[in-house]
Amino acid sequence: MEQNAKERSLVSKVMDGLVTGIVEEKYGAVLPPQDVLSKEFDVSRTVMREALSMLLARHMLDVRPKIGTRIRPMRDWRMIDEDVVSWRFRAKPDPEFLRDVIEFRMLIEPRASAQAAKRGNAADIAAIREAFESFRVMRPDDPGHQAADELLHTRIVVASGNQFFQQMAAIVRGALSASTQFVNADEAMWAEVIRRHTRVVEAIERHDAVEAEAASRDLIDFAADEMGDRKAANGTHE
Amino acid sequence: MEQNAKERSLVSKVMDGLVTGIVEEKYGAVLPPQDVLSKEFDVSRTVMREALSMLLARHMLDVRPKIGTRIRPMRDWRMIDEDVVSWRFRAKPDPEFLRDVIEFRMLIEPRASAQAAKRGNAADIAAIREAFESFRVMRPDDPGHQAADELLHTRIVVASGNQFFQQMAAIVRGALSASTQFVNADEAMWAEVIRRHTRVVEAIERHDAVEAEAASRDLIDFAADEMGDRKAANGTHE
Repeated sequence: MEQNAKERSLVSKVMDGLVTGIVEEKYGAVLPPQDVLSKEFDVSRTVMREALSMLLARHMLDVRPKIGTRIRPMRDWRMIDEDVVSWRFRAKPDPEFLRDVIEFRMLIEPRASAQAAKRGNAADIAAIREAFESFRVMRPDDPGHQAADELLHTRIVVASGNQFFQQMAAIVRGALSASTQFVNADEAMWAEVIRRHTRVVEAIERHDAVEAEAASRDLIDFAADEMGDRKAANGTHE
Repeated sequence: MEQNAKERSLVSKVMDGLVTGIVEEKYGAVLPPQDVLSKEFDVSRTVMREALSMLLARHMLDVRPKIGTRIRPMRDWRMIDEDVVSWRFRAKPDPEFLRDVIEFRMLIEPRASAQAAKRGNAADIAAIREAFESFRVMRPDDPGHQAADELLHTRIVVASGNQFFQQMAAIVRGALSASTQFVNADEAMWAEVIRRHTRVVEAIERHDAVEAEAASRDLIDFAADEMGDRKAANGTHE
């Protein structure tokens, strides 16, 4: 990989140059063709192609047939790498990781719920209600259950209107799957899960930020307690 | 870029396969040589090299001379893309972006300060004090000032001990530069900035989590107010 290291540093120099041009609005809305860029940067087409791929993968560019390589609006740029998040959560979790997951959920979700209550527009709130209705009618062992849960939590984060919060949706989804896999599924427990989600959704609908934040904390506390009980039962408690 | 799109999807399939192998601990500590992997996945060396570069760039692999491509511990895996963060902050900020930046700092820094006070060990706390001492003796127009400020805030986030918080250090650094570029540098103001930082650092040293959290909020409030004043003065207030 010796050769590779050199090439990589060249690719990253080119990436940096492209980004400088983009943020200085040198190119306008569409990048020049690849061979023009290769000449401009005095690199091979292979290097230029790799640099463009990296920017494409970070949602900074868009390839449009007949138009060319369009520069995407800055708020689309990916500050979180979705792939790595999902990969990281795919591995079996250790107790410290689970503690960090719950802390992270506690950090982001209550505040996002409060912002959603404060700033969410009619469409945001309708989307939250819709996701909640799908979630509510499912049983924890239904195949679509996990996806419905993730969609609901994602929509709340999106409704916060804050682009940093929004970009953390991938981590929230990962955190959710890591923390709900421990949750028991008996009738009483399930009714309780639904009751706590209802409280969050209704507070957002009433634009009650304080209640939305408290309800969200309460929901995560419940998940954390359940997780602790299960871990204790499995003998893996810290 | 038509050809490129196909190649990219092949690269990402290979990446996914490698990651599956890694999280299932199929390879042990060191990956097989590239040509063995190329054969295993039935792809060209070019595709395999690109897939490995992507994992390398995400801090999932390490190239060690004579050892080979080592798999890095999972907590090193980059969930935040440092590059995109710095690029994003390089562009000139709009008012909504600045609002989001302050909200993000308010989200993460007070909680990180509280966790640092609760969990920071002697080395963490000594590192915070050291960074603070460098910061304190500098003037806002010293060339190293921005770096010293960033180091101090980064060390607090690191001392939180939470890997999600830690991975947000890049965003914190970007947010800091975006929010401090507006801050005035007259004597009285500067003394106030130092006073507020002192309060955070001393609370962490006393392991007083409640006070550390409050002091951190207070510090960010101050930056936000200053930013608002400057924006108003420049006629760019929302």
